[in-house]
Amino acid sequence: MKMGTVVRTLPRSSPAQLQELSAAGVATVHEAMGRTGLMNHYMRPIYAGTRIAGNAVTVLVHPGDNWMIHVAVEFCKPGDVLLVAVSAENYDGMFGDLLATSLRSKGVAALVIDAGVRDVADLREMQFPVWSRCISGKGTIKATLGCVNTPVICAGTYVSAGDVIVADDDGVVVVPYSNVEATLIAVRQRLAKESSKRDRLASGELGLDIENMRPALERLGLTYYETLEEAQLS
Amino acid sequence: MKMGTVVRTLPRSSPAQLQELSAAGVATVHEAMGRTGLMNHYMRPIYAGTRIAGNAVTVLVHPGDNWMIHVAVEFCKPGDVLLVAVSAENYDGMFGDLLATSLRSKGVAALVIDAGVRDVADLREMQFPVWSRCISGKGTIKATLGCVNTPVICAGTYVSAGDVIVADDDGVVVVPYSNVEATLIAVRQRLAKESSKRDRLASGELGLDIENMRPALERLGLTYYETLEEAQLS
Amino acid sequence: MKMGTVVRTLPRSSPAQLQELSAAGVATVHEAMGRTGLMNHYMRPIYAGTRIAGNAVTVLVHPGDNWMIHVAVEFCKPGDVLLVAVSAENYDGMFGDLLATSLRSKGVAALVIDAGVRDVADLREMQFPVWSRCISGKGTIKATLGCVNTPVICAGTYVSAGDVIVADDDGVVVVPYSNVEATLIAVRQRLAKESSKRDRLASGELGLDIENMRPALERLGLTYYETLEEAQLS
Amino acid sequence: MKMGTVVRTLPRSSPAQLQELSAAGVATVHEAMGRTGLMNHYMRPIYAGTRIAGNAVTVLVHPGDNWMIHVAVEFCKPGDVLLVAVSAENYDGMFGDLLATSLRSKGVAALVIDAGVRDVADLREMQFPVWSRCISGKGTIKATLGCVNTPVICAGTYVSAGDVIVADDDGVVVVPYSNVEATLIAVRQRLAKESSKRDRLASGELGLDIENMRPALERLGLTYYETLEEAQLS
Amino acid sequence: MKMGTVVRTLPRSSPAQLQELSAAGVATVHEAMGRTGLMNHYMRPIYAGTRIAGNAVTVLVHPGDNWMIHVAVEFCKPGDVLLVAVSAENYDGMFGDLLATSLRSKGVAALVIDAGVRDVADLREMQFPVWSRCISGKGTIKATLGCVNTPVICAGTYVSAGDVIVADDDGVVVVPYSNVEATLIAVRQRLAKESSKRDRLASGELGLDIENMRPALERLGLTYYETLEEAQLS
Amino acid sequence: MKMGTVVRTLPRSSPAQLQELSAAGVATVHEAMGRTGLMNHYMRPIYAGTRIAGNAVTVLVHPGDNWMIHVAVEFCKPGDVLLVAVSAENYDGMFGDLLATSLRSKGVAALVIDAGVRDVADLREMQFPVWSRCISGKGTIKATLGCVNTPVICAGTYVSAGDVIVADDDGVVVVPYSNVEATLIAVRQRLAKESSKRDRLASGELGLDIENMRPALERLGLTYYETLEEAQLS
Repeated sequence: MKMGTVVRTLPRSSPAQLQELSAAGVATVHEAMGRTGLMNHYMRPIYAGTRIAGNAVTVLVHPGDNWMIHVAVEFCKPGDVLLVAVSAENYDGMFGDLLATSLRSKGVAALVIDAGVRDVADLREMQFPVWSRCISGKGTIKATLGCVNTPVICAGTYVSAGDVIVADDDGVVVVPYSNVEATLIAVRQRLAKESSKRDRLASGELGLDIENMRPALERLGLTYYETLEEAQLS
Repeated sequence: MKMGTVVRTLPRSSPAQLQELSAAGVATVHEAMGRTGLMNHYMRPIYAGTRIAGNAVTVLVHPGDNWMIHVAVEFCKPGDVLLVAVSAENYDGMFGDLLATSLRSKGVAALVIDAGVRDVADLREMQFPVWSRCISGKGTIKATLGCVNTPVICAGTYVSAGDVIVADDDGVVVVPYSNVEATLIAVRQRLAKESSKRDRLASGELGLDIENMRPALERLGLTYYETLEEAQLS
Repeated sequence: MKMGTVVRTLPRSSPAQLQELSAAGVATVHEAMGRTGLMNHYMRPIYAGTRIAGNAVTVLVHPGDNWMIHVAVEFCKPGDVLLVAVSAENYDGMFGDLLATSLRSKGVAALVIDAGVRDVADLREMQFPVWSRCISGKGTIKATLGCVNTPVICAGTYVSAGDVIVADDDGVVVVPYSNVEATLIAVRQRLAKESSKRDRLASGELGLDIENMRPALERLGLTYYETLEEAQLS
Repeated sequence: MKMGTVVRTLPRSSPAQLQELSAAGVATVHEAMGRTGLMNHYMRPIYAGTRIAGNAVTVLVHPGDNWMIHVAVEFCKPGDVLLVAVSAENYDGMFGDLLATSLRSKGVAALVIDAGVRDVADLREMQFPVWSRCISGKGTIKATLGCVNTPVICAGTYVSAGDVIVADDDGVVVVPYSNVEATLIAVRQRLAKESSKRDRLASGELGLDIENMRPALERLGLTYYETLEEAQLS
Repeated sequence: MKMGTVVRTLPRSSPAQLQELSAAGVATVHEAMGRTGLMNHYMRPIYAGTRIAGNAVTVLVHPGDNWMIHVAVEFCKPGDVLLVAVSAENYDGMFGDLLATSLRSKGVAALVIDAGVRDVADLREMQFPVWSRCISGKGTIKATLGCVNTPVICAGTYVSAGDVIVADDDGVVVVPYSNVEATLIAVRQRLAKESSKRDRLASGELGLDIENMRPALERLGLTYYETLEEAQLS
Repeated sequence: MKMGTVVRTLPRSSPAQLQELSAAGVATVHEAMGRTGLMNHYMRPIYAGTRIAGNAVTVLVHPGDNWMIHVAVEFCKPGDVLLVAVSAENYDGMFGDLLATSLRSKGVAALVIDAGVRDVADLREMQFPVWSRCISGKGTIKATLGCVNTPVICAGTYVSAGDVIVADDDGVVVVPYSNVEATLIAVRQRLAKESSKRDRLASGELGLDIENMRPALERLGLTYYETLEEAQLS
């Protein structure tokens, strides 16, 4: 996409869908999508204990330049997640409390950024959730065009505007907009299955037996010994 | 050791020994062992403020495959530490709240894993302590055999089943099973010495004087100047 | 500077200056100095929520050897920041609760170290603030001479004894001693400007309009489309 | 895309197009596309001095499992580039001389893999070009389904089957299949401009003057001093 | 093992065994041992094109201190590999052309070191092979005791004195002394199998068919489509 | 220093001094300066086998912006080394064959840059030596002011314009301009000492005996055992 392209609109999911994805959490949603959609594990929350889901307003910026974030604010609506991708590896502090104040006034739910953030004490006090590659006080300039609401690559994932970003203490996962309903169906199945399994595990039953894994392990040659010495002699 | 080897038993230390090692903490135990046994500093707790010690139930897995963790659960006893080594560098989320529920039902004290963990909000809520290489939502498969309770290399240390794992906010240290008593003796000496030293330092006495370091420093040529200019002119 | 050089004295700022720099915080001070002076983003606090400013007592040590830290304690005064640079990349735990006790007795405000620290649970309990490259239990020796209160390179910055170290949850920034007053003037201007801007942003006004960025963006060719399809067709 | 999806066909560019992109090289093609399409700089050739361009046969695998590479071979044609993406960070040696022999028999031009390779001495002797994240002897398994010829994320770029992969000693860049002709037009313009500029630079003319940068620099406040002392006094 | 322990002797393999392991190479030996024994992939040769195998004379040093390497030289015999482990992460240049001259005079085959080396231009000219974690000019001291010929952890592997170190452009693998003969038997089987397979692959036969993988892939649900569109519609 | 400061002049060493430092090489010069002045080991040559020394023309740029390199060319003279520092961690390809052509026309000896370079195949063909943090095709912009010939921090070292940069396959070391003569004296002493020592080592004498280290080792408690078993029993 040509640099300097700004798209004003994006599709949005229902509050109920977002709420259900947020409650399910990153690991479950990732599994429900066939183990896909996960951002690189270097994406971490700036403070623990938050979970969110919202449609992505995407921004593409260049290293050391946060200008397009300012352009993107105009198109954010309540519940959205501002998602910032960078055209190359970068660690600068592209976002701080002023931009957070601006996003808060629009009702934005969170920021996800493949670069640094700063003013993190203020952001924590505002309870404005951020997942980022790092924390850095390094300031940025406003000199080059990027894009808003075009597809981007962020922390190893492909994100289109409107895709649902789910984030919690485990990291960040991306649900393509058109997959939301199918993902929710798989999420519900997984949660139902996990719930009954959790009870059995809590009561001391082994996962090995619940899942009937012993025959497969035996076929592959798993061998039990009473002691290490016995194993070494065999 | 041949892949697919599972050893059922391991030696275990007394609760008093474990309690004393846990109270001493990682840095002191590492010093008491002649500055050995420390895991790589990338091993971090998923939440701060916990300290544990327990005998290791060791597991060797392959990148992206957590099957052998399920096999190992069966051999855990109250107070044990489940210790997971990987045969190559890996960052996948190999352990989550279901496995933690299963380990909790066995009374396991903690997990130490040279890979990623997930469901960390749940683990924190359960107060199930984990030290890991990273946090990642990435799911794993169950396809290949590894080993249980054989010696492994974990985060740069050699661990045999039954070795005592001590972990706190400073990281993780491994005490070979047969060294526990000797280590405790050295720990006690060190703690006694540190205690009196701490009081003297708190009262403003210098470590330089308490340890009588000035003569050695002078012999090596340490030279004091009043100002930087004076030093530059000399 | 010759290894083994110790300088006894350093210039010190007024408590009012230090207090004002600390309150302004890392990101603001860095901007006020023309986006300079910031340490590498790998320097992190061992616990969140602290902000400090103090004149640097500088120490240069070698990998694995913390001897010169002991030499430096003697020259610390209330409010100082002990700043430890290393002559090569190092991750050892060079500082723990005993040294912190000693520094506390001198009234030292904080430690900044381009290496590891240990006993972090104790340091947190003492509320002794530390910014470091990492946390590691690894012990160090006392064998080689370094320097005290000579200029050093620490985490990518140049620090002379007496320079003001400002640190908070965003990281660490260095204000050269002779720039303190000029920096404070720029800080005040920036804070005044930010304050009025924050109010306007909070009320929903766009940064784009407050800063009148639209003409410049248009000149560079920024183009708005209603939908992605429209942008792709253009 | 559902795991286990294999697409047999892909669009292919003309040999003349591939030849022209290869000759232009990675940096020029990246610039011609508006500074986009570049893989992360960790992607390096296993030996220096090679440049290639070819349409991508894409493969998605999981950490530690190279099975889908074997599935993909069947769909490779002379001049293609086999491109392997992994669903999470991985460093295993997924590809060696046997797979290279198989690809060579199909006329494949090169391998690009976001993981490790092995048998690199053999690959160099065969003159089979590889760009990879690392070199590792670590073996992999054949247990899980991935995808062939579906869109993938590889080293921070989005790649569809048929996209042209250009690689040389500077790294790897991806040209979307439908952009090849437009990219070539921009490449030619850039090369023409660079050629005349190179001659002027070689003759000692300054880029500052060729590009008439002085007025803009002056407007921003660039100030020349004869000596450092003069600059410090100003 | 107590710091300061030096063992004079180690078991040694026959020249024929070493020659055969060296010829087989790292990847093959690693596979023949059930995918074990491989050092971390950060261990790289300082120049390409060498392959060696020799019994390990092990050394344990501390960060920034190479004294024990000097102690170890005395116990090296022709064909040995000097193997240096460090008690914590370190990047200093612990070894240069003087030590290489000393080792060469003893007939030592190579150095493997989990730290830095220097004088690499000289080492290349001497054709003295080295595998290391990095290259660094940083000098080290001679102040602390380590161990010689005791078991060590090196780059993620456990090495006892006398274990065979095999190294080539793929990295480094460790064969426990007592496993040499069993490993060679497995190596021969693997090489025989690979040789016939290589011919079939070179003639264009698919690995998928040679290994009869299609039924297993089909059982897991691998599905072929003619085009991406067809796959998306299914 | 204020951004936008350009200093036209710098002190320069004699060709004989530069030649002698270049011949001595990085490791020897670093030792001769008391083990100081070494850049971080991540600074690597883009091709092996070159050694240079020259006075630094310093440049300070910002991430993603190479404008000031163009400004600096004007002040380079034959034999100089262009040294580029960045105000924060950056990996972009800031320098390529056009800038190299321009520098070559001025007789510049080499580039040292704490960021990426590109067109490395061309640079190798031109035999234009470069030491850099990485290789990357990523293009940069020309938008922000930095500095020329002011003191900078580059890869962990402090460099003033005119300081001598010595670089070879071991990395890069900085000799302050005013220390050149003193450094050369120490270099000559070291080389003389090393030369006689090299002969003795080549003849099989041990460093332990040449340096008479045995008594010190014995005092610290070094203990020799014939076998590992004997050591374990002691």
